This record gives sequence, structure tokens and C-alpha cells, in this order.
Amino acid sequence: MIQVYTGDGKGKTTAALGLALRAAGAGHNVFIAQFMKGRSCAELTSLKKIKSIKIEQFGNTCFIKKFPTLKDKALAKKGLKIVKDNLAKEKYSVVILDEICVALNLGLVNLREVTAIIDCAPEEAEVVLTGRGAPKEIIERADLVSEIKEIKHYFKKGVQARRGIEY
Amino acid sequence: MIQVYTGDGKGKTTAALGLALRAAGAGHNVFIAQFMKGRSCAELTSLKKIKSIKIEQFGNTCFIKKFPTLKDKALAKKGLKIVKDNLAKEKYSVVILDEICVALNLGLVNLREVTAIIDCAPEEAEVVLTGRGAPKEIIERADLVSEIKEIKHYFKKGVQARRGIEY
Repeated sequence: MIQVYTGDGKGKTTAALGLALRAAGAGHNVFIAQFMKGRSCAELTSLKKIKSIKIEQFGNTCFIKKFPTLKDKALAKKGLKIVKDNLAKEKYSVVILDEICVALNLGLVNLREVTAIIDCAPEEAEVVLTGRGAPKEIIERADLVSEIKEIKHYFKKGVQARRGIEY
Repeated sequence: MIQVYTGDGKGKTTAALGLALRAAGAGHNVFIAQFMKGRSCAELTSLKKIKSIKIEQFGNTCFIKKFPTLKDKALAKKGLKIVKDNLAKEKYSVVILDEICVALNLGLVNLREVTAIIDCAPEEAEVVLTGRGAPKEIIERADLVSEIKEIKHYFKKGVQARRGIEY
């Protein structure tokens, strides 16, 4: 099954992380590829305790300001290759491409590369894509799409991103 | 801060679970009260490995068919009391009331009891409420509200709920 968590609200990455936690509890092996992220996120510390979840980051330590660098693109391409290999080897029953939609919209990877992964995924695998702005080609191919809409966000009141809550 | 994950789409409970995982990784103690749930969910197995997350279920082992029983109500009331006590003791910095909105809409707990918890929560605590149909009184009080909309769901294609994915 292909699952997509998109939209402008908080909860996309955490929904995928929660799914990983649940899947691991049922005995599944889970692979999480975090695109666009290269700095220490608090979830990495917790995930070390769950052996059946493997997480790898394929992003720079700093945010992409306006235009991605060659390094940003190379990291994202590497991430996609590893995801593809892992799906082909059928080692993981749940494979999460965190923030892949943002990587797509910034041109770090292209739509053809991502849809090829979806189209070639083993039928028994659960492939989860997150990030705002999921393109319609991905929504069409997905079996489940949740749009997480921001109804209210404390960022608008000036609250800063907090470690353990936002990252 | 008060966070609410509501709407008809998949991802509300998993968003809260992912947040718990992230918060624990940053050194926070997390308490999860699962309302309406009493049967073994796969996430319970994974969470045992993370000592700083405590999860308790306050539901029957079977689903509520049409009308809740006295036992359903008593369990939910017990859950609310424990959440309230835990918040008062300031033992946990993140407290999650999973499916509390459904418990509210089914009349297991009443709105006054839930808003009292929100209103009395220590300012430093993160209180997270999940479940479809969050009432407007809760949305008004919340600092963050994400509505998870179902754009597509494989249940509509006849796929059954799967252990490790839906529970």
C-alpha cells in the first residue's frame, strides 16, 4: 500500500514515526529515509532503542535557503537509491520517505524517480510518503492520502520550534 | 501548549505517538492515556522499550456498538482522573489523551471535565488530544489544531484494518 501524509499542518512526520512504532511492535522491519534533514532530531535518540526501525538522514545540517546546492541534490539522490535498493531486497515491510514531497517541490529529486519507486514497490510493502504539496501524480497512485490541514498553529503566536516537539 | 489532532483521516493517533517518540528522545517524560481502547495495539510492544513513555488504556476490549456501557464510562472517567492527577503532579511534560474526542462525542466523559483538564494544565506541559469531531470549545482553547482530512482511504477498497498499520 502507498500512504501519503501531506498538507500544511503539523503531524505529517510524526504520523509516519507513529506508524513506524506501531509496525515495529507488530514485528515489521521499518526503514525511514529522512530527506532534507541532516541535523539531530530528537526522534533519532528514541529510535535507537527499537532495533527493527532503521533511520537514515539524507539532508544537509543547514536548511535550504532559496536554491538547493549540488550537495543537497546528491544527498537526496543517494536517499532515493537506498530506498529503491531496500525495497528491491524486500528487507523492510514498511519504508518511509519523510519530506520527500518537499524534496520533490524543491527539485532535489524528480517526479519520475519517485513514481518509479512507488510503481516498483513490492505489493506487500507499505510505502509512506510525507511532506507538504504532494503532487497529483503521487496522490493518484496512492492507496491512502491524509491531508493534514493547519486550523491553528502556535507558530503564528510567535512560538519558536522546540526540540522534542517540532524536531 | 494544547495540541489537537482531529478529522476523519488516518494519522491522528500515530501523530501523537510520533510526538511521544520525539519528546522522549529530547528527555521528556510522556504519559499516554488511550481512551476507548482496551485491546492489544502493536504500539504497546514498541513503547515498552522506551522507559520515559508510559501508556495506559482506559477502554473495553470490545468496540462500543451503539451505546456505551457503565463499564465503558467508568473506564473513561478513571482515565480522566489519572490524566488530571498526572498533570497536577507535573511528573510528565507531555500528556496525550488519545481518542478523547470520540469518548466525548459518545458521552463517556463530558465536555466540562475535559475543558477543566485543559484549563488546569501547567503552562509548561504539552497536552495532546486526538480523535475525530473535536468540539469547538476545545478547538477554541487549543494552541494548535491539525485537521487530518481523508482524501483517499484503502478501507473504501475493502482493505481490512491490519495489525501494525491500523492498530
